[in-house]
Amino acid sequence: MIVNCWGYNGQTPGPTIEAVEGDRVRILVTNKLAEHTTIHWHGVLLPNGMDGVGGLNQPQIKPGETYVYEFTLRQHGTQMYHPHADEMVQMAMGMEGFFIIHPKEPEQPRIDRDFCIFLQEWFVEPGTSTPNPNIMTDFNLFTFNSRVFPGTAPLVVRLGDRVRIRVANLSMDSHPIHLHGYNFKITGTDGGRIPASGQWPETTVNVPPGTTRDIQFVANAPGDWALHCHKNHHVMNAMKHDVPNMIGVNQSGVERKIQNLLPDYMAMGESGMSGMAVMNMPLPKNTLPMMTGKGPFGPVEMGGMFTVLKVRDDITSYDDPGWYQQQEGTVAWRVIE
Amino acid sequence: MIVNCWGYNGQTPGPTIEAVEGDRVRILVTNKLAEHTTIHWHGVLLPNGMDGVGGLNQPQIKPGETYVYEFTLRQHGTQMYHPHADEMVQMAMGMEGFFIIHPKEPEQPRIDRDFCIFLQEWFVEPGTSTPNPNIMTDFNLFTFNSRVFPGTAPLVVRLGDRVRIRVANLSMDSHPIHLHGYNFKITGTDGGRIPASGQWPETTVNVPPGTTRDIQFVANAPGDWALHCHKNHHVMNAMKHDVPNMIGVNQSGVERKIQNLLPDYMAMGESGMSGMAVMNMPLPKNTLPMMTGKGPFGPVEMGGMFTVLKVRDDITSYDDPGWYQQQEGTVAWRVIE
Amino acid sequence: MIVNCWGYNGQTPGPTIEAVEGDRVRILVTNKLAEHTTIHWHGVLLPNGMDGVGGLNQPQIKPGETYVYEFTLRQHGTQMYHPHADEMVQMAMGMEGFFIIHPKEPEQPRIDRDFCIFLQEWFVEPGTSTPNPNIMTDFNLFTFNSRVFPGTAPLVVRLGDRVRIRVANLSMDSHPIHLHGYNFKITGTDGGRIPASGQWPETTVNVPPGTTRDIQFVANAPGDWALHCHKNHHVMNAMKHDVPNMIGVNQSGVERKIQNLLPDYMAMGESGMSGMAVMNMPLPKNTLPMMTGKGPFGPVEMGGMFTVLKVRDDITSYDDPGWYQQQEGTVAWRVIE
Repeated sequence: MIVNCWGYNGQTPGPTIEAVEGDRVRILVTNKLAEHTTIHWHGVLLPNGMDGVGGLNQPQIKPGETYVYEFTLRQHGTQMYHPHADEMVQMAMGMEGFFIIHPKEPEQPRIDRDFCIFLQEWFVEPGTSTPNPNIMTDFNLFTFNSRVFPGTAPLVVRLGDRVRIRVANLSMDSHPIHLHGYNFKITGTDGGRIPASGQWPETTVNVPPGTTRDIQFVANAPGDWALHCHKNHHVMNAMKHDVPNMIGVNQSGVERKIQNLLPDYMAMGESGMSGMAVMNMPLPKNTLPMMTGKGPFGPVEMGGMFTVLKVRDDITSYDDPGWYQQQEGTVAWRVIE
Repeated sequence: MIVNCWGYNGQTPGPTIEAVEGDRVRILVTNKLAEHTTIHWHGVLLPNGMDGVGGLNQPQIKPGETYVYEFTLRQHGTQMYHPHADEMVQMAMGMEGFFIIHPKEPEQPRIDRDFCIFLQEWFVEPGTSTPNPNIMTDFNLFTFNSRVFPGTAPLVVRLGDRVRIRVANLSMDSHPIHLHGYNFKITGTDGGRIPASGQWPETTVNVPPGTTRDIQFVANAPGDWALHCHKNHHVMNAMKHDVPNMIGVNQSGVERKIQNLLPDYMAMGESGMSGMAVMNMPLPKNTLPMMTGKGPFGPVEMGGMFTVLKVRDDITSYDDPGWYQQQEGTVAWRVIE
Repeated sequence: MIVNCWGYNGQTPGPTIEAVEGDRVRILVTNKLAEHTTIHWHGVLLPNGMDGVGGLNQPQIKPGETYVYEFTLRQHGTQMYHPHADEMVQMAMGMEGFFIIHPKEPEQPRIDRDFCIFLQEWFVEPGTSTPNPNIMTDFNLFTFNSRVFPGTAPLVVRLGDRVRIRVANLSMDSHPIHLHGYNFKITGTDGGRIPASGQWPETTVNVPPGTTRDIQFVANAPGDWALHCHKNHHVMNAMKHDVPNMIGVNQSGVERKIQNLLPDYMAMGESGMSGMAVMNMPLPKNTLPMMTGKGPFGPVEMGGMFTVLKVRDDITSYDDPGWYQQQEGTVAWRVIE
């Protein structure tokens, strides 16, 4: 599935900007859109004229023009950048990115693995390829860094690593991101570090629109652990709506009758939708089936905002190590009576 | 109103599992659905093969099969269980329950009353009896433990009791649960206890999807105190939508004319909807009127996610003591001019 | 644009009630609606009979009747008042207000500027003038104190002032309110003050329904700083939906053809919607264009829940000082190649 988005340097989310507290940064922005734009440096403390609200803090950057932003970084944390011009449209089309400011003095304890996940939601009418920015509530694609499971990258860590995941959200909905197998602490927002005395333990970090959240934990439990949005429709792809509710309806007679006319007809949904993960239902062009992805035990029946944290004790690189090899006797087992 | 749900041991939410930190638990799951399922132990620290994501951590449990989950509890708090297979459907149909792990060392100060409320939202088309799991945003029934007010159980406590309410949410929306008459502290999540230094005082606890929240307070104010979701549509039942907006419209002429044809016709909504609580408007089969419930002073005009905390100084049991007897001169009074 | 709302003393939000901890307050409520009502004092600790849930704690206040509420204030903070009768309708029509209780002992450090913002969402069908309370998710107007930008009041402060902003929400959605140029602390809820050890730093305060949030910061950065809801549709007005998605569609041929029939016809949206801010598209009666407001550098392209924090070092009053005069060389600049 290919979608026509807008972004920065040819990608959405745009490239992650990394700098160090105290740095003076100069960023050149060339507008290659057909309409004007600006960039707002969300959460960054800077002079008012660099804040990027078109009309309020600066002139709009017209198509073809290049503007310079320059400021000194006076903080550290997980910030963002995005337009503040025609923003309902431009953010819905994919214009956004991380702006990571590292502390001057290294953090203690040291972070071994540091991940960034941008949360996004889109409405792409099946059969079309351009997101519709007029949609306010009824989205049909939900992505981590513009990808759906199993296209999302796994998070590979070594047993014992201290892990930080930075999550950012510029969509219309809060996304409660749930990690299996762990309790973690919420350690920061786009407003800065939360003091240890105020950090909440969670298994799910709720990320409201217009915020970032940093979470931290020590990867002390080996295995393949699901990491996903806990709004159940957000771990599905398109094609889950606009189908009649057939649960509990005996369709066997109907199926036979319709097959006289349409030999491929298939009654669905009588006992649930898990069949969707294995069937090859014909789809409109350029959309995605509701559920995708295979694991070591068969279809995972997920899509959308879903990936896997892979914790291993025997790896020498952070390349994808494949599926976890469960130790014998540690997997839920079937009772044979 | 009767709805065909899916659950555990014949109920939704399923039975509350209670165990103690350090216990080794063995749980047998027999699948009596017509499609496969699994159980994920949400927030419980356990071996990867017991985590219950079908396809990823274990094979699916096929219809008729029995699987064993076995693990040792290494924490305490308010956890949950739910399927991780066809989950958009199975959770929307009611498959979920509390998993309470009590601490090995009793908590100080002691909790006198401990309540569990599962938050749920459903779309049941009026006239039908099966929830529609394809609905993503436009639900029409909102329940505490699968019941709407006045079918919800009151929370009965003795004056001076230390009360904990554990609230869980696996629906698509955050639910801000508001308690009248009290300030409380948010003391825990499914990730564990929040240190006292980080606990927020609230009168409303916002519960995002995929989380639990524990709140605590000492019941030092006697009376009947409303406890409800503060999204105003969530304390109503079905039949509130798809009616034209008549506020401020003088319908008297229209009413007379239509009554020539339909003698039962009744113009509604001209001055608001409070009339809905007392009228007996004919409804489609198997749905609920918008507002239900009577209190000591007349109709309460609520439904959905609403119940009453009853704090009494003179009770010898925790059975429902009826309505609070207000002391003379303590009730808002009418001025007679 | 004029909307027929319901309120208190002729306004929505109603007048802000201010009192001091320890005060005994007596409030007379005369019902001038055509249906009954009550008032609930949200977050205020008081006797059960003064809590205002119609039917549960008191009789309904019938049209024309006057009721007395009387209680002693035993706390301080940011509370609210609103009906607890036909509440889905009455709150959607605008019945709500702040109830501020000041501490008996003045706070340290002293607050120099103290602002109140009530968050609201409405559905007013274009061409009509009465909010539709049956709408649950698809609102089209989003307001600060019942006004949209640029009708919203700016927040004027002196450089170095300690500022508190109290935000209240009785709508159906959480609103993440983002302040540019600053990190602030969340210092209180309608449940009371958050201890310093538990305060989170933020640039965006997420305000769930049925809650208030106090934020504080020292105004140490001069300039005009945007303050707005970060749900992107909430900084737009009506007329953004129900238009086809034309992004990337070449409409030039179509435009010419239609202009043969309709000379005023204008193809829109091909490159985005920023054109909406400058054009004078004919609108239905009594609605608002999607984007409104001009700044010192041209159209700001915002509406809805948007205003400006104006921080100045040279003011002798808190009247609107006009736009910030940027110092030379401090504004993002265009590169001329």
